[in-house]
Amino acid sequence: MNGKASSQSAHRVVIVGAGFGGLNAAEKLASAPVQITIIDRENYHTFQPLLYQVATAGLSPGEIAAPIRSILSRHPNVEVLMAEVTGFDLDRRVVKTSEQEIPYDSLIVAAGARHAYFGHDEWEPLAPGLKTIEDALEIRRRVLLAFELAERRAAAGEGDDPLNFVVVGGGPTGVELAGTLAEICRHSLAGDFHSIDPRRARIHLLEGGEHVLPAYPEDLSRSALEQLRRLGVDVNTSAMVTKIEPGVIYIGNARMNAAVIIWAAGVAASPLGKTLGVAVDRAGRVLVEPDLSIPGQPEVFVIGDLAALKDASGKLLPGVAPVAIQEGRFVAKVIRTELDKNTERDGNSASQPRPAPRAAFHYHDKGSLATIGRAAAIAQFGKIHISGFMAWLAWLFVHILFLIGFRNRLLVFIQWAWSYFTYERGARLITGGTDLPGWDTAQSRVPGPKQAKEEISAVVEK
Amino acid sequence: MNGKASSQSAHRVVIVGAGFGGLNAAEKLASAPVQITIIDRENYHTFQPLLYQVATAGLSPGEIAAPIRSILSRHPNVEVLMAEVTGFDLDRRVVKTSEQEIPYDSLIVAAGARHAYFGHDEWEPLAPGLKTIEDALEIRRRVLLAFELAERRAAAGEGDDPLNFVVVGGGPTGVELAGTLAEICRHSLAGDFHSIDPRRARIHLLEGGEHVLPAYPEDLSRSALEQLRRLGVDVNTSAMVTKIEPGVIYIGNARMNAAVIIWAAGVAASPLGKTLGVAVDRAGRVLVEPDLSIPGQPEVFVIGDLAALKDASGKLLPGVAPVAIQEGRFVAKVIRTELDKNTERDGNSASQPRPAPRAAFHYHDKGSLATIGRAAAIAQFGKIHISGFMAWLAWLFVHILFLIGFRNRLLVFIQWAWSYFTYERGARLITGGTDLPGWDTAQSRVPGPKQAKEEISAVVEK
Repeated sequence: MNGKASSQSAHRVVIVGAGFGGLNAAEKLASAPVQITIIDRENYHTFQPLLYQVATAGLSPGEIAAPIRSILSRHPNVEVLMAEVTGFDLDRRVVKTSEQEIPYDSLIVAAGARHAYFGHDEWEPLAPGLKTIEDALEIRRRVLLAFELAERRAAAGEGDDPLNFVVVGGGPTGVELAGTLAEICRHSLAGDFHSIDPRRARIHLLEGGEHVLPAYPEDLSRSALEQLRRLGVDVNTSAMVTKIEPGVIYIGNARMNAAVIIWAAGVAASPLGKTLGVAVDRAGRVLVEPDLSIPGQPEVFVIGDLAALKDASGKLLPGVAPVAIQEGRFVAKVIRTELDKNTERDGNSASQPRPAPRAAFHYHDKGSLATIGRAAAIAQFGKIHISGFMAWLAWLFVHILFLIGFRNRLLVFIQWAWSYFTYERGARLITGGTDLPGWDTAQSRVPGPKQAKEEISAVVEK
Repeated sequence: MNGKASSQSAHRVVIVGAGFGGLNAAEKLASAPVQITIIDRENYHTFQPLLYQVATAGLSPGEIAAPIRSILSRHPNVEVLMAEVTGFDLDRRVVKTSEQEIPYDSLIVAAGARHAYFGHDEWEPLAPGLKTIEDALEIRRRVLLAFELAERRAAAGEGDDPLNFVVVGGGPTGVELAGTLAEICRHSLAGDFHSIDPRRARIHLLEGGEHVLPAYPEDLSRSALEQLRRLGVDVNTSAMVTKIEPGVIYIGNARMNAAVIIWAAGVAASPLGKTLGVAVDRAGRVLVEPDLSIPGQPEVFVIGDLAALKDASGKLLPGVAPVAIQEGRFVAKVIRTELDKNTERDGNSASQPRPAPRAAFHYHDKGSLATIGRAAAIAQFGKIHISGFMAWLAWLFVHILFLIGFRNRLLVFIQWAWSYFTYERGARLITGGTDLPGWDTAQSRVPGPKQAKEEISAVVEK
């Protein structure tokens, strides 16, 4: 029970991915007599719910990310490895990286998801998505650079047509990006340019379905739409993107010039899911058993965005942090319980967990929140639906509370308090080059939005 | 005198570069009846004295940089242009960028300096220097990545030889980098790895001359050497670098393996200096008149690191922030004074400043400070020489005081207070790829430091 196994005989747990699921599994398992190796391709954990703040220059990367080693350094039995996992050998029970093979007794795969272009991968360089810190820096670079190039063009007397920013996808990421971009144009940058007026920039949010934030009840979704419009976002539902070219996006047959295009329209699970050799769904998510293990391999678990599991009502659990956290803790508990049983039985903690009937995972939904912009959000706690400022306060509170590490929490709070009152954004740095698709940056010319105005109106008023 | 000229007839000042010199010139001129255009290739001003903190993961880029537009946004007569200046036409009085020509009545060139490799530009990818935010992020990436690769190598059972970090150049930048790297290895990272012990890493500081910080009096320079050694830095004076290869550095004929090499051995002025058509010194600095104008062109000024000016004792003014700041303010005052005179004379502020005898610039040296590491620094205020903790406190106070923008100042102070007590470093993110010169990153092997141990000892004990 309290038996501390020596490192030779300790039960070996390998966790792939240090997102919310992987980290929580590691934390929960660390006090058990196990040897844990957590592998991630980055050296840091990213607090994904605030990525959009980095993309919109509100926070610096260091404020929403923490080194995985620091987070776990107090556990001597947790090893952190920065490496790229290339596959698995489930028969030999090893995880393969480009350099070595790492043996396991229990395996937790929490490799997450990336954005997906539905067969149009060629759109990625033209319309980056937002899943990593590097993605966020690229979006920040493009947004800020677009204003600089427009100012340069206008200063050179080559016209000051307003900029179009297009966000594709009306889910939580698209909505928070569009709302925050509107705030930047109308407030943060408003007084900083001479030859252009950033307030004239237009933010277009394109959603293929009928509603933004379609996962929410209709009244909240409608409220989100109103709040977006109040912030100055042109919301455009039932809008299907048919083509993307440098600086241009096609919605159906209509053509719209776009200074910056951001992709928030879909996710696909990590390709590692397919290498497990079990069934996956259309988005590449692994169809897990009710206990989150994979069929036929009770020692292999898949959690977080990579797992496809339905709740009691038959609805797929959403790819959000609380689901991943609860799944990580659940799997840790399953492994601990079976180890304890084995230790009791034969005192040998290194033997395999006995395949015994396990409880099923149940997601405890404490509510969900989506932010839209400054003092704008929606929240659902069971039957309670909240909109606007109060929902935003709830969102703020929850996110500061959960942001990993006291230091980051304090800094982020100061940043937010400061920027709430001043509209200032502290991380307005253009780093990583001055190329922008669709712009002849040497000439600072874009295809003038004028010729496409009719098409835009057609689209917007549709 | 208080005449507000309309924008058509206003005297046009163009400032090239938004470093300390350019920004201070703009601030000081902004209340005069002039139209100012300040051009920089970046959209932000960098607080260069703290760049080493970004390179060593103590601060995030956003904390030591501020958008030029924000800094100057309260001045309606100051225009900010993000563009690359390609040259000048002094006869037609225009500044050329890749897109346009910008006419001026007065020109202030404050384009600064870059690090120089003394004819060995091929060393740059192997041994990056530290002059920009992008440089700092590259150094941070390499330092953090080296530990991750070493851990990976050791975890795979391929040896755990300690890492060598080599800093070339014993000036202020080299000294603060070496001291801070030593602190990171001994404290910040000490408990975070399992297969390697970061405390075993060795920091080598190579200086070609006889003393580190040679610009300081000998007693302070000796004190700096002692403080560096106490922090665990191997200081190596009279050490000439003869060759750099991926992962290897040669000092004289001795060969040393190096996980990361950082170049802090020399600067060269911006190539824009040479395009002015007047004499430059060996480092490319423009030999300016006592009033900081260039020979034969009283309306063209060169300030900051790009200018070569001697003080009363015949010593070249150092390339530090206070010199640039005072030069920027001096030039602004010269332009204002002559404009006022012209306005008095003929009421036409757009006419050229009359070439009249001008006062000479005198640098008021308020003292100088160099930081070495945690609670380690040297300071000289006239005849007062201070070392150690008190000097470090003075350094801290001055740098927080001068850091532009209240918000950044507060955040930086919190970061420092926090990291002073915890040794934690908040920006330990590896971004921008996982390649490292001299490392076969797929194999995570470096040329084992073992075979070179004798050469290292030879070098170190010399």
